[in-house]
Amino acid sequence: MGQMYGHRVRRRTIAGDNPQTLAETGEFGLIAELTGWLPAGPRTLVGIGDDAAVLATPDGRVVATTDFMLEGRHFRRDTSTARDVGHKAAARSLADVAAMGAVPTALLVALAAPGDLLVSWARELAAGLAAECARVPGASVIGGDTARADSVLLAVTGLGDLAGRPPVLRSGAGPGDVVAMAGPLGHAAAGLALLSAGVRDGSLVTAQRRPAPPYDAGPQAADLGATAMIDISDGLLADLGHIADASGVLIDLSRTALGPSAELTAAASSVLLARTDSCSPAPELIALNWVLAGGEDHSLAATFPPGTALPPRWRIIGTVRQAPGPGVVVDSQPWALAPGWDHFA
Amino acid sequence: MGQMYGHRVRRRTIAGDNPQTLAETGEFGLIAELTGWLPAGPRTLVGIGDDAAVLATPDGRVVATTDFMLEGRHFRRDTSTARDVGHKAAARSLADVAAMGAVPTALLVALAAPGDLLVSWARELAAGLAAECARVPGASVIGGDTARADSVLLAVTGLGDLAGRPPVLRSGAGPGDVVAMAGPLGHAAAGLALLSAGVRDGSLVTAQRRPAPPYDAGPQAADLGATAMIDISDGLLADLGHIADASGVLIDLSRTALGPSAELTAAASSVLLARTDSCSPAPELIALNWVLAGGEDHSLAATFPPGTALPPRWRIIGTVRQAPGPGVVVDSQPWALAPGWDHFA
Repeated sequence: MGQMYGHRVRRRTIAGDNPQTLAETGEFGLIAELTGWLPAGPRTLVGIGDDAAVLATPDGRVVATTDFMLEGRHFRRDTSTARDVGHKAAARSLADVAAMGAVPTALLVALAAPGDLLVSWARELAAGLAAECARVPGASVIGGDTARADSVLLAVTGLGDLAGRPPVLRSGAGPGDVVAMAGPLGHAAAGLALLSAGVRDGSLVTAQRRPAPPYDAGPQAADLGATAMIDISDGLLADLGHIADASGVLIDLSRTALGPSAELTAAASSVLLARTDSCSPAPELIALNWVLAGGEDHSLAATFPPGTALPPRWRIIGTVRQAPGPGVVVDSQPWALAPGWDHFA
Repeated sequence: MGQMYGHRVRRRTIAGDNPQTLAETGEFGLIAELTGWLPAGPRTLVGIGDDAAVLATPDGRVVATTDFMLEGRHFRRDTSTARDVGHKAAARSLADVAAMGAVPTALLVALAAPGDLLVSWARELAAGLAAECARVPGASVIGGDTARADSVLLAVTGLGDLAGRPPVLRSGAGPGDVVAMAGPLGHAAAGLALLSAGVRDGSLVTAQRRPAPPYDAGPQAADLGATAMIDISDGLLADLGHIADASGVLIDLSRTALGPSAELTAAASSVLLARTDSCSPAPELIALNWVLAGGEDHSLAATFPPGTALPPRWRIIGTVRQAPGPGVVVDSQPWALAPGWDHFA
């Protein structure tokens, strides 16, 4: 049905001038609410309110990615605010664009929701989307769709600009390259464990509800000559596994370089205190598993030619080796804990 | 989590080498299945298999739109095949791109589904998406996402190329312009009524399951100097209402020009035969309501300056008048039947 954002008719019902739910405000009332929170950016040639948006792509190429963010799978309304959900939904797509070496420029946001969802929830969602876009100069929401569903469904498309750079693929890592990270690892997974244990605040819980990917590190890595790059959404081992597969190399991580930090180990201890298992792994091991297998931080991992002078935000965590077979190892050994997620298992 | 299409690892379970369901084949097996049915197009610089796709946009602008296609809201698995759903999901976004006066160039497809969905269903879906893309020279699926959900959820993003044309907005209609249509009207609505009455085949049922929008009529209209354009997804009155609102004009449709065709009137008669109401409207009136209020044909409506020499595919159905207030009338009178849909009512 196209983008109906910006239609001028507002449907009024028995709720009169102060509708509380989506069913009361209607589709066009919802769209008007959202639009008010989503300012156009400098590249928006046609924004919200027509059959489609038009975005400037002076590079002659556009980077494009799309991601679901589904209630019950990717977020819960009882542990995340609508603003958190907006931040996280935007972050997932913006980080994918950055992981190509591009500057994110625009989002398209499709939102389906139950009729009894509060208008205030949708308004806060839009505010979160806009605030996360504002972390990237020039990025904005340029369009979307609305529909009715039994739970809150978001599908966010991210668009971006390479500004003349070649895209950084998963397939370019070569033996001898160094592996480096920008952004935190394991924080979102630790936050999820803390939430499950009943903890409701702190920086790790915030990292789960509202990850803050280092978007500008993506184009920076491209400019530094990165040979491969990926955003860590499913876990470090799983996502570096994609680079190893696509590049036909072995990635050897250094356990010493991975940490985990004292903050993560302390979080693991507090999660263990909330459990009654007679036999649990050591907190250091739980924390290391968050680093290696926890996803959703949307930090960036990249490979660089040996000897590349890396700025401090890029922490070296391993090296690329000639493969006997592609894969990811830690201190030359396979790592035993579960690597990431399979959505259909 | 980015686009994971194209990952080389195929998960094998107790189903061995012949997995039947998504739960058995796993996320990467599903992605491999889909990818095999989705060939890259000439503008695909980076396709399925990285964090994001890269599409050539030589015009320096990209047209972008996103649409949900949700089981139970937009299609039913018991009345539409997976191939139908693929065609229709693609058509919804491709038509929005065409309605801007652009040539559709690419789709991004996010698919969430239950674990017990058959792999063959997903394969047929991909075949339908690819076949609908093939109706537009050069268009292809360049990326997507997968997730697990309790029902089948699709979110399709369409991208397109204006090739130097100004975009045709909803806001450019002026008094004296003619209103014209390309493509059928009311066919998808008639097909839905026939399906509800138990009819399972025929051209109108096919129009509901698998609309075939006249994509090339969009850029053609732009080249002919169209002043406003929209795709008819929610119904002619509702969608022309968007042009009337955005342009601040009155649109006066001609009942004679609208038909309805003998085919639609015959369909209305057969639907009436299946009902037991003691008092029903005349078949001609039901058919006219399909034309005026039925959506989902994804035909194109546009306004043109008076005197524009229109090719035969563009049928003149009305005129644009100076508004006492914006709106759409038929033979200068308001039309009483329900204009379109509100998703949250």
